[in-house]
Amino acid sequence: MGDNQTLDTIFSRASYRGKYKNEPVSREDLTTILKAGIAAPSGCNRQTASFIAVDDEGVLKEIKEMFPNPSCQTAPAFILVFTQEIAGIDGRFYNVQDYGAAMENMMLAIKSLGYDTCWYEGNVKKCAEQISTLLHVPEELHMACLLPVGIAAEEVCPAKGKKPFEERAWFNGYGMQ
Amino acid sequence: MGDNQTLDTIFSRASYRGKYKNEPVSREDLTTILKAGIAAPSGCNRQTASFIAVDDEGVLKEIKEMFPNPSCQTAPAFILVFTQEIAGIDGRFYNVQDYGAAMENMMLAIKSLGYDTCWYEGNVKKCAEQISTLLHVPEELHMACLLPVGIAAEEVCPAKGKKPFEERAWFNGYGMQ
Repeated sequence: MGDNQTLDTIFSRASYRGKYKNEPVSREDLTTILKAGIAAPSGCNRQTASFIAVDDEGVLKEIKEMFPNPSCQTAPAFILVFTQEIAGIDGRFYNVQDYGAAMENMMLAIKSLGYDTCWYEGNVKKCAEQISTLLHVPEELHMACLLPVGIAAEEVCPAKGKKPFEERAWFNGYGMQ
Repeated sequence: MGDNQTLDTIFSRASYRGKYKNEPVSREDLTTILKAGIAAPSGCNRQTASFIAVDDEGVLKEIKEMFPNPSCQTAPAFILVFTQEIAGIDGRFYNVQDYGAAMENMMLAIKSLGYDTCWYEGNVKKCAEQISTLLHVPEELHMACLLPVGIAAEEVCPAKGKKPFEERAWFNGYGMQ
């Protein structure tokens, strides 16, 4: 590692749930983050993930009313992620994998540009319909998750509570190191 | 961008389906790739994804018999990804998202270390049980996907057939740029 910035980004990324500084995220950086999401692979190239970046004051205000936590309340921008259930050539659905990969790409892009974020999903479901109506999203796109984006105003702590390597990764057979 | 290696890796990564050079992937690099998988976030921190790297000649030979394509036939190493269905605190399952994010982290780590790979999933299902038996994997872990890892012996082409930005990403409302 050392001079491998990609690995540094992967290993320094952590879920940030604190407040954000009152500084905007430039449209250029938001565009780069969205392009990172698009750059992720997708099952059978179905490209089932799509994205809406929010940086408009009025729209931000409406979304913040749905997410009362300090992090979302102070975020200067959001990325909303939508998924579409399109079967692959084998009839299977890979849309969850697709947005999972796109989320990781965007979180790493966010980190590499000097911002922080956290993957919100479980508490997004109850507002999904409201957000889709607000943003005129067609019904075949389902809101899956959300990323607040901004400069962290508090300390960004390393990822906590990770199981040791030996409990999750092995060589040439289960349990083998 | 320019001096942002993380973005360069994200934007240069592409699914590689060609042959690999007959050069090994060091155990150190395999370990780094596995650590990148572990470094991905997981829903409610359930850490449902786990990994087996394969670099043993005998095990490689057995796995190659299941995947007759030129890429897998020539790969000097594989990463096998397993998933476990553990509910989050909200009773929902995020294990597919979890391995989706872990896969992207590993693919970027692979690219940043000078190797190439491709996400194999659909054609893995039929061999999942056979591989689990071969590697003594407990039945609660389900094989989800596989990454061959090695140095590309052929040209690595940029990702093809991507929809334009405007069809997948918008600002402050569906369809808006």
